[in-house]
Amino acid sequence: MLLSENQFQKLVSSFSILPGIGKKSATRIGFHVLRMEDSTFQSWLNGLKEARERLHFCQICGGLTEETICDICDSPKRDKTILCVVEQPEDIFFIENTKEFFGTYHVLNGSISPLDGIGPDQLRIKPLMERLEESDIKEVLVATNPTLEGDATASYLSHLIKEREIKVTRIAHGITIGGTIEYSDQYTLGKAIKSRLTL
Amino acid sequence: MLLSENQFQKLVSSFSILPGIGKKSATRIGFHVLRMEDSTFQSWLNGLKEARERLHFCQICGGLTEETICDICDSPKRDKTILCVVEQPEDIFFIENTKEFFGTYHVLNGSISPLDGIGPDQLRIKPLMERLEESDIKEVLVATNPTLEGDATASYLSHLIKEREIKVTRIAHGITIGGTIEYSDQYTLGKAIKSRLTL
Repeated sequence: MLLSENQFQKLVSSFSILPGIGKKSATRIGFHVLRMEDSTFQSWLNGLKEARERLHFCQICGGLTEETICDICDSPKRDKTILCVVEQPEDIFFIENTKEFFGTYHVLNGSISPLDGIGPDQLRIKPLMERLEESDIKEVLVATNPTLEGDATASYLSHLIKEREIKVTRIAHGITIGGTIEYSDQYTLGKAIKSRLTL
Repeated sequence: MLLSENQFQKLVSSFSILPGIGKKSATRIGFHVLRMEDSTFQSWLNGLKEARERLHFCQICGGLTEETICDICDSPKRDKTILCVVEQPEDIFFIENTKEFFGTYHVLNGSISPLDGIGPDQLRIKPLMERLEESDIKEVLVATNPTLEGDATASYLSHLIKEREIKVTRIAHGITIGGTIEYSDQYTLGKAIKSRLTL
């Protein structure tokens, strides 16, 4: 057990580098992978390889697609006058799941974070400005995360876009549906009070 | 996005079948894997393959090893008169981390669970009995999980082993009822080993 820990630690690391996986989860996953039948493991690997070969990022919005242009950008049914800006392609999935947004998207591939050396030039902001220039977009809904970086990005984009006389909105931050005031953190609750709506 | 969801769902499933990974984590991991550089992805795959090729289960205890016999079974420093019985090979890791146990191990590869069709014959109980027969073991510490199945297994083993006039102990309840050894912190687990009770 002791000598083999080195090799096993490598296996654990293979999983603990993945987002949201701690050391204990990585250990359990490592053993799970070791216990897989050879054929199961092989088809599991092939599934990952195939996904990487077939899936790309849309040349317009940066979202996930098997084609050059994704189905949302390509659809005549989507409202081309409202554009939702997100940090990551996966955010599109979560917003689509709500069935509350019918416009198109633009993925930034991150958020402004000077400490990590990520400025506006490292993000897909130039392509965003080109889209605003060339199309009939009337509203940009900024759906960056309510973090320091997401807020900075939203504020930066807001200034830039308003200059073009395009309406800029941001998703509301407030207490979770089904949650309680008691368990909301003070910042969220404060924000919810500040952005209260007239009934 | 819509058409490609099929291929992406397959990728998400590749991760959501892993223990402890929900759909949202699997989605994040899926995107992480898609964003990997080709060379990173390739060496990641190779790491998994190498781990599976090099790691095996010890022919004596059933624990993890790169050899035929693991370092614990092979070590002259380990106390060969006390044997700790665990459900899974990963449990050995968690018990070793406590630094409270200096005997050797025996992995059952599961626990008695009639509803899942797992009886004593599906577990490594026969090899356990053979070890007790052939060696100088004076105490068996049963470290099955404090679950219905783990309790049933402990009770079954206790009857079987006591017939041979070997002392049977079980790690103390101090670890959460309904929880698993894997998710106990090392201090609680260490305490539970120290205050083990004779059955």
